[in-house]
Amino acid sequence: MNFSNYAKHYSSQSGIVQLMEDLSVAPPQDGSLYPLGGGNPAHIPEVQDALRESALALASDRHRFARMIGDYDSPQGHEAFRQCLAEQLSSLFQRPLTADNIAITNGSQASFEVLFNAFAGRYADGSWRHIALPIAPEYIGYNDMSRQERGILKSTAARIDLLGDRQFKYGVNLSEFTVEPETTGAVCLSRPTNPSGNVISDAELSQVADRCRTAGVPLIIDGAYGLPFPGMIYTEATPFWDDNTILCLSLSKLGLPGVRTGIIVATPDVTRLIRNANAINGLAPARTGPELVLPLLQSNTLTDLLERVIKPHYLNKQVAAVDALLAAAGDLPIRFHQPNGAMFLWTWFEGIPGGTHELYRRAAQEGVVTVPGHHFFQGLETTWQHANECLRINYAGDEHTVREGIERLLLIAKRQYQQG
Amino acid sequence: MNFSNYAKHYSSQSGIVQLMEDLSVAPPQDGSLYPLGGGNPAHIPEVQDALRESALALASDRHRFARMIGDYDSPQGHEAFRQCLAEQLSSLFQRPLTADNIAITNGSQASFEVLFNAFAGRYADGSWRHIALPIAPEYIGYNDMSRQERGILKSTAARIDLLGDRQFKYGVNLSEFTVEPETTGAVCLSRPTNPSGNVISDAELSQVADRCRTAGVPLIIDGAYGLPFPGMIYTEATPFWDDNTILCLSLSKLGLPGVRTGIIVATPDVTRLIRNANAINGLAPARTGPELVLPLLQSNTLTDLLERVIKPHYLNKQVAAVDALLAAAGDLPIRFHQPNGAMFLWTWFEGIPGGTHELYRRAAQEGVVTVPGHHFFQGLETTWQHANECLRINYAGDEHTVREGIERLLLIAKRQYQQG
Repeated sequence: MNFSNYAKHYSSQSGIVQLMEDLSVAPPQDGSLYPLGGGNPAHIPEVQDALRESALALASDRHRFARMIGDYDSPQGHEAFRQCLAEQLSSLFQRPLTADNIAITNGSQASFEVLFNAFAGRYADGSWRHIALPIAPEYIGYNDMSRQERGILKSTAARIDLLGDRQFKYGVNLSEFTVEPETTGAVCLSRPTNPSGNVISDAELSQVADRCRTAGVPLIIDGAYGLPFPGMIYTEATPFWDDNTILCLSLSKLGLPGVRTGIIVATPDVTRLIRNANAINGLAPARTGPELVLPLLQSNTLTDLLERVIKPHYLNKQVAAVDALLAAAGDLPIRFHQPNGAMFLWTWFEGIPGGTHELYRRAAQEGVVTVPGHHFFQGLETTWQHANECLRINYAGDEHTVREGIERLLLIAKRQYQQG
Repeated sequence: MNFSNYAKHYSSQSGIVQLMEDLSVAPPQDGSLYPLGGGNPAHIPEVQDALRESALALASDRHRFARMIGDYDSPQGHEAFRQCLAEQLSSLFQRPLTADNIAITNGSQASFEVLFNAFAGRYADGSWRHIALPIAPEYIGYNDMSRQERGILKSTAARIDLLGDRQFKYGVNLSEFTVEPETTGAVCLSRPTNPSGNVISDAELSQVADRCRTAGVPLIIDGAYGLPFPGMIYTEATPFWDDNTILCLSLSKLGLPGVRTGIIVATPDVTRLIRNANAINGLAPARTGPELVLPLLQSNTLTDLLERVIKPHYLNKQVAAVDALLAAAGDLPIRFHQPNGAMFLWTWFEGIPGGTHELYRRAAQEGVVTVPGHHFFQGLETTWQHANECLRINYAGDEHTVREGIERLLLIAKRQYQQG
């Protein structure tokens, strides 16, 4: 069939399409599969049992179940869930938040599609404004979000600080990163950062937020891995929100990627826009996620699971993955980003001939699925060799699989370093 | 906050925003609420019990539940559900369909947002093509779907055939309705039609489909109320699909509006586009709907419920609503569309002073919520008085409420006819 030019926004070549397709790839004929690619969170039995209890209670209650499946939710999302979350966030941020400050979407990716286009592109004054990413690399899903005539992202290449033990850390290059009202529609950063596992410091965040507030430009914080949940932060970091901030949360990394629930915390002019977009794009968001999680939120079971189960679970996985990487690295010139958050080892194969896209391709052929780094360096104005030397490894899976996957990956990398 | 021009696509003034907000309106201080507005389907106990059984089985199966909540679905949607549905549709349409012919979305409204923009607007050859609606009035949700610089809908005003017993019926005005490759990106019609309850005949559909095929323009059939499910058709109608057709189905009117599941049946070039849009706009569709309904599809429980429970349920509601309308009509010059499908009485208040938007407003103040007709006449090039004289009444709710709501509505209409 013939498609319009608009259909080009939905290209099969998009990085996020390839990543999501890779999630369901079959193992090679003569070997095992090592799925270290997409962002599927861990299956944590204790968390799943709590959610299953919640589901059983819901399905046992004829009246609640009837409403959950049988009624459209309000287009801004589940009222009781928004109220309960607003109360908890009020005490976390020391600011009076209400249900009007919260809107539900069908996942954080859907939140960004609306927010990025509502803040970027042509303005009534004739200006063209972009979404500024203070640090590249940033989340792969931000790419391909423009529904307008050209791209809307502008990134500032990260400052790289080399650390001991094969580690490095990205920082905001504050002399390069600028926020200007005429050209910046919004600033966006993920904290923790997907893909790097970076957690930008309170001081850095405060400087970025100050620049945004001074310029009258909103700051979008992608908290998909952050605070208050799923809380996958393994360093000191203070939760942040003010009325110039749009905080995007998600239930996915708590263990619910299958039900698609995103949460936006913002001033009511923004949450109303999301409400309208929900109605126009999809009538209403799904009720499933809020219904399943509300009892856990009300009883503080969620808070308990975050500290007692989820964070230690990922930290243990991380220790095993770092062990495997260090043990297998040998004399390869590789480093990995200081893993302060999320569930990724962001690995830098310095000087690898052919780049990490080639490494990704060769590894995938042998059943080791990762994500090549260049997809995460969107919105840069100049090419950067570093972008072709990184690779994202998800360490959330089964420990043995992750360990063996990393060992195999580094063997393949070794061949590539030797033979080009 | 400052928004870009793009944010105008998400206006609070949109008809579908108002309709969805009206779904959760509170009753007036001194009276009852008669929610005859939005498209919430009926709560049918036997259907809900079957779905609840399915939910209990799912939540009792640790492994299945873990996958349902804990894994991203593939971006084209639930593989086993698509396979099972493809088998059933193959025998219904007498054509070999596979899982590749099916894509899942977060509800039919989300399907249309992608499809309409992928087929309308600017093409590579420089042409600007619209979505042609063979009959106005059509579904309110088609409006406000353009993500491009101008509107994308072009409608042909319906032919009105007056029938006995205060009824009328819309037909396709085949001398006005044209399909031209240079200006028509796709043709779209709902069958049964929301809002009118019309079911365009096999002969009319065949003529529209022929014109589409000849012009090489795809035909989008919105089967949200149609065949094979929910099957809310109370007249003879043959299910139709060919490789120039894009059939949009939904689980909502089966009783699952809260979980948001849309289904697209089309050639693989179209389902791949949907797959890409799913990944880019939201990573993957929700698994909930397919997981809950798959066992009912596999066991043919669904087919049984459609014929034995769902259709008779709505027919009974319809009979009661028509009774109430006829009994209360008195000497008002009102007619209603022949109710051949869906769950609406589309009522024509001929010559009502001030129009039905005023009637809607007055009725809402007294707790009777309906949908004013003018929202459904999008894409017409000239004004049409008929558009200001219609009102949609949802008769799916509690029979007593519907009956009393209709009586009150007609009393308010009577005052408006008398006093202007």
